[in-house]
Amino acid sequence: MSKKAIVLLSGGLDSTTTLYYAKSKRYKCYALIFDYGQRHKKEIVQGVKVAKLAKVPYQIIKIKLPWKGSSLLDTHCALPVTRSLKEIGHGIPSTYVPARNTIFLSFALSYAEAIGAKAIFIGANAVDFSGYPDCRPDYYRAFQQVMKKGVKASSRACRQAGIQVKTPLIKMTKAQIIRLGLKLKAPLDITWSCYKGGRQPCGVCDSCQLREKGFSSVNPAKPSSANAKRPPSPRGRR
Amino acid sequence: MSKKAIVLLSGGLDSTTTLYYAKSKRYKCYALIFDYGQRHKKEIVQGVKVAKLAKVPYQIIKIKLPWKGSSLLDTHCALPVTRSLKEIGHGIPSTYVPARNTIFLSFALSYAEAIGAKAIFIGANAVDFSGYPDCRPDYYRAFQQVMKKGVKASSRACRQAGIQVKTPLIKMTKAQIIRLGLKLKAPLDITWSCYKGGRQPCGVCDSCQLREKGFSSVNPAKPSSANAKRPPSPRGRR
Repeated sequence: MSKKAIVLLSGGLDSTTTLYYAKSKRYKCYALIFDYGQRHKKEIVQGVKVAKLAKVPYQIIKIKLPWKGSSLLDTHCALPVTRSLKEIGHGIPSTYVPARNTIFLSFALSYAEAIGAKAIFIGANAVDFSGYPDCRPDYYRAFQQVMKKGVKASSRACRQAGIQVKTPLIKMTKAQIIRLGLKLKAPLDITWSCYKGGRQPCGVCDSCQLREKGFSSVNPAKPSSANAKRPPSPRGRR
Repeated sequence: MSKKAIVLLSGGLDSTTTLYYAKSKRYKCYALIFDYGQRHKKEIVQGVKVAKLAKVPYQIIKIKLPWKGSSLLDTHCALPVTRSLKEIGHGIPSTYVPARNTIFLSFALSYAEAIGAKAIFIGANAVDFSGYPDCRPDYYRAFQQVMKKGVKASSRACRQAGIQVKTPLIKMTKAQIIRLGLKLKAPLDITWSCYKGGRQPCGVCDSCQLREKGFSSVNPAKPSSANAKRPPSPRGRR
């Protein structure tokens, strides 16, 4: 019987690739999608589509944070002005949501314990990223310790194996992630990366720029998978 | 200006004492109360009463865990059979809620970052406790690392001080906690500890037994605070 894994799924390029990666490693995947008051529901809609296409069960966790502290949660707060690709990753932009990944991982940990999953996959990336602190390797090493100490398996009386946090994309460039996604036949064309929820991606936010940078590095003329026969739009589409 | 602190408040004896302890250390406290699908709402009601008496602002966070994995969440699952005081603390009972404190702390961390709080207080105790893994000191040491690595303050560019997790009761006996609560004039008489939500505490669950053990060790005939003039019921009352 294959091992169970929880996969955090945002409907974006990275988490979708991560889901297909976990599947390729023969994990029985359970997707967790969060409705945490983000500016738009588009990524949730796309996350559900991805989970259905991947044929994995999914749960949507609804969270209402009474505080804001992020331009991704607070519509009265403007999204940051466009940064150049060189600037992205330096400093922490206003789109940072306080402790978001810690909240997500804590729910994933609870789910993993409840169903006996052995791994939690998250598509965190510390190369082509916005500079968020909770995307860096040392953060995940720290969370691994919480997972080791704070669960049933940490009891001497318990013979269960511990739960591992897996960040397969953490050291990849966006182009490498896209290549991996294409190779794994992940439906990258339906993923949504833009911070805004318009009909079309804005093309200028950090997330859009990093996505475009990745796609422009990949040569779609030489598809490495069947998926690429339907060339994924660099900006993503519905 | 006094430093801000988030205090996790369950409406029980330990968290109420912790709130009054944080106040005594001149923190400006913000209480966080969780409605996470526990068997009864009594502790939430009492938590709100405590926050109002303490004159601290509070937020109630509503969480719906689609999974159960605990007799504290699943009413179809019987609460554990009565354990003797000697047995309590050995092994992890079915009342353990997977990753509950990690979820609570992750919200507290988010709140702390959003409002610029410098500390998170939690009334965890590893002496007179049910044996939950997320009540032990090494778990909090691990979470402190997550708090160090996963927040804005971990960025080199950021000059904010980090956030500390504070567990003032972790090495105290229940009797010591009660004495501290009485000294700080915490309203222990309105706290609720019982796992069940009846009109009166059941008196036999782990939580009731630990509470009674504590009160029977404290001599109410020699009150050390004005609060004790109205002697707190060992079983708690509304």
